[in-house]
Amino acid sequence: MAHSLWRCGRHRTGAVFELFFRDNPFGGGFTIFAGLQNSCANVSLFLCLSLLTCLSLSLSLSLDPVFVCVCVSYVNASPSLSLSLQVALMEVSGPLAVVQLLETPLLNLVNYASLVATNAARFRLLVGPRIKLFELGLRRAQGPDGGLSGSKYSYIGGFDYTSNLLAGKLYGIPVRGSMAHSYITSFTSISELTFQTLKPVGDGAAVDFVGLSERWLGRVCRLLEESEEFPDAGERAAFISFALCYPSNFVALVDTYSVRRSGLPNFCAVALTLDELGYRAIGVRLDSGDLRQQSLHCRSVFRACSQTFEVPWFANLSIMASNNISEENLKELQCQEHEIDYIGVGTNLVTCPLQPSLGCVYKLTEVNGKARIKLSEDQSKTTLPGRKNSYRLYSPDGHPLLDLLTLHSEEAPRAGEEVQCCALGRKMERLQVTAANVEPLLSVYFERGQVRASSAKLGAGVRGWGAGGK
Amino acid sequence: MAHSLWRCGRHRTGAVFELFFRDNPFGGGFTIFAGLQNSCANVSLFLCLSLLTCLSLSLSLSLDPVFVCVCVSYVNASPSLSLSLQVALMEVSGPLAVVQLLETPLLNLVNYASLVATNAARFRLLVGPRIKLFELGLRRAQGPDGGLSGSKYSYIGGFDYTSNLLAGKLYGIPVRGSMAHSYITSFTSISELTFQTLKPVGDGAAVDFVGLSERWLGRVCRLLEESEEFPDAGERAAFISFALCYPSNFVALVDTYSVRRSGLPNFCAVALTLDELGYRAIGVRLDSGDLRQQSLHCRSVFRACSQTFEVPWFANLSIMASNNISEENLKELQCQEHEIDYIGVGTNLVTCPLQPSLGCVYKLTEVNGKARIKLSEDQSKTTLPGRKNSYRLYSPDGHPLLDLLTLHSEEAPRAGEEVQCCALGRKMERLQVTAANVEPLLSVYFERGQVRASSAKLGAGVRGWGAGGK
Repeated sequence: MAHSLWRCGRHRTGAVFELFFRDNPFGGGFTIFAGLQNSCANVSLFLCLSLLTCLSLSLSLSLDPVFVCVCVSYVNASPSLSLSLQVALMEVSGPLAVVQLLETPLLNLVNYASLVATNAARFRLLVGPRIKLFELGLRRAQGPDGGLSGSKYSYIGGFDYTSNLLAGKLYGIPVRGSMAHSYITSFTSISELTFQTLKPVGDGAAVDFVGLSERWLGRVCRLLEESEEFPDAGERAAFISFALCYPSNFVALVDTYSVRRSGLPNFCAVALTLDELGYRAIGVRLDSGDLRQQSLHCRSVFRACSQTFEVPWFANLSIMASNNISEENLKELQCQEHEIDYIGVGTNLVTCPLQPSLGCVYKLTEVNGKARIKLSEDQSKTTLPGRKNSYRLYSPDGHPLLDLLTLHSEEAPRAGEEVQCCALGRKMERLQVTAANVEPLLSVYFERGQVRASSAKLGAGVRGWGAGGK
Repeated sequence: MAHSLWRCGRHRTGAVFELFFRDNPFGGGFTIFAGLQNSCANVSLFLCLSLLTCLSLSLSLSLDPVFVCVCVSYVNASPSLSLSLQVALMEVSGPLAVVQLLETPLLNLVNYASLVATNAARFRLLVGPRIKLFELGLRRAQGPDGGLSGSKYSYIGGFDYTSNLLAGKLYGIPVRGSMAHSYITSFTSISELTFQTLKPVGDGAAVDFVGLSERWLGRVCRLLEESEEFPDAGERAAFISFALCYPSNFVALVDTYSVRRSGLPNFCAVALTLDELGYRAIGVRLDSGDLRQQSLHCRSVFRACSQTFEVPWFANLSIMASNNISEENLKELQCQEHEIDYIGVGTNLVTCPLQPSLGCVYKLTEVNGKARIKLSEDQSKTTLPGRKNSYRLYSPDGHPLLDLLTLHSEEAPRAGEEVQCCALGRKMERLQVTAANVEPLLSVYFERGQVRASSAKLGAGVRGWGAGGK
């Protein structure tokens, strides 16, 4: 298309596109707009590459060498949280050939980012501010890059941690994880531990950790009235090896054989041994079965140990749950008593099964100052012609009343003055509204080939919302 | 975990993992295993990077410098089409620390690849061999890399084309597309065409294309008994500009204003003008409304033009359809008469909304020659312990009877000899089977740090299935 536009001399014609969506995802009432920083970075890169291409092509005659160099495109974008449908998330203006080429990249960078950030926010709203959420989706994402996007935009949407080390490294997201089941099943007995001692916190000689933990196992089993024979020795060896390596970051996956009869007694024995040497374990992870019941049981055992062995912090050990967590089973969980502090979500976070795509579109609204429209047999797909401004109108007590679309040529609404408007798609329904406060929704983020807002600010602004929810 | 394994001296212990899934996706009866080539390439890269890391770490003492260099891991993998659940798609064996680190990368590279290839194959099976399928999913994929995976594995699953130019460039997938609605709405009148002539095929002076096409429009409108006033001049200008640029590759998007009253007459006028100059247009694309009815109408118009204007090829112009195509509406379409030759699928192909993730897992089956198991309260999540071989047993007429799992230490089944076996999960149900032919399912693809099969062969083998379906 760009080549064809150049052939008929229209590549530099000024054009304005709008990027917007028609329905909030998941049948919900909001969408978090994400992907702006990445979009700006990519438009910037695209313009640089285009410039290089133009220079290299200046030797041939197949494309006009000044094709892109003259570009002054700019991106107007709305803040991170969008409430109204059909209000542009982005307005992109510049030479027709350039801004048309940006359609697919911008849709690719905004659609999934906004979808997964919104999905993450729904999880956050569901669990409230107390529970920590960690993202575990890399295995089910669309390749490595899909996994990185999942981690980044889940964090923006309100998650606390990711298990994706590279995402932690690249985006500064706090990383959390525990061990794999295979780590545990790879051990069969205590004798496999070639390294069995640990130095106490502060000064002191290394002590026999294995011997100490065996004694603690006996005490724990007597307290819980469980047989000392049952807790799997291989599982205990795995826990000990992990504790010796990370004495201040000990988290154990306790459901490999049996939470109640093996994982939990083994964990308590190792964690109490750590306590004796001055370290504090972090907690346990549950990954199968009835997570709610198991969490109640874990907490009661932690409290019993705390009281019996006089270790106050033991009652407050963290309990992490994962295993196909979805909105639906979280809703159920939240209605009942449970003791889970951390929830890990993978598949149902990054693949968004309730609606795995956001339908953002990128439509031409103006060419050479003239409004343009796309008609459709499907009325909802007909575009709103003309370049527009958008404003959020607030009531005196600070609540948003509505988002107002105006033509770009119209005057901005003013606080305290009555505005006549009509509801989208219902032309006959006139409204009068007087706003106590008017907020313009579009700001310039990219202009004359440069990102205007600092990228740090972009990231911080977006993250602010998620953090505010907690 | 790897660090911890090194600390307790178990990083070089021999281990075997299996990568498998428990249920076919989309409630279907098969899964196409894809992602093997990419997995081998990434394991190779991983080992190189690990080696570099080890060298750089040899200056510090935080990790053992010979940690990975000793690696001789290998990947046994089954062919591209897998029919039985719990049969390993991959067996990965090598030093425990190394093969454990491969869990997440391999799951990431196989899960989505296999899911989308299977989804693509379902579309192919639904439409049969005649209709061409093109992939349009980039805008809804999980970032740019997700889009590339979508294109690549849709092609492997049986699609013919992609609209993703980079995928075409990187993987050699044939690329197809047409114009955007915005390309059409960016034109308002014929006067915007600064370039209005075209040379006929072969020799001859450039002729006035615009004048010729206006005359053809008159003839077409008289034939169709439509007003000559209605076809949008801007749309026609867009079609002409595209035809002048690509006279041998002219495809027009005809639903911007009205297929019947504007898009189709405009297309016919331009395509008949091309014919007069010796070029053949390719066809039209429909992107909204009742695609089936529109395709019937388009075909009847093409036939009428073909007969009236004596242009035989015009009756066979291609009709392409897109617009939220799903398995469900394709099933409906296939039950009725239609004239669609090409179908474009985007969102419902790459995001796999019927089931947006495949649940492949990666489980430890053997350490140091000893079988290992992961138990679970959820019976279906308990693993099958021990290293295994798998065979496909065939009947005398070449039909697969069953896939047989044996322990690695057991003898392979032989053709013509009765085998006693039992159905997975139903130990009491004994079967006797005598196979006319026995095919081992696992082959070595990666050994001693090297990809063993050539990557070209890997790709070709996998693609073979999709192509065979047509």
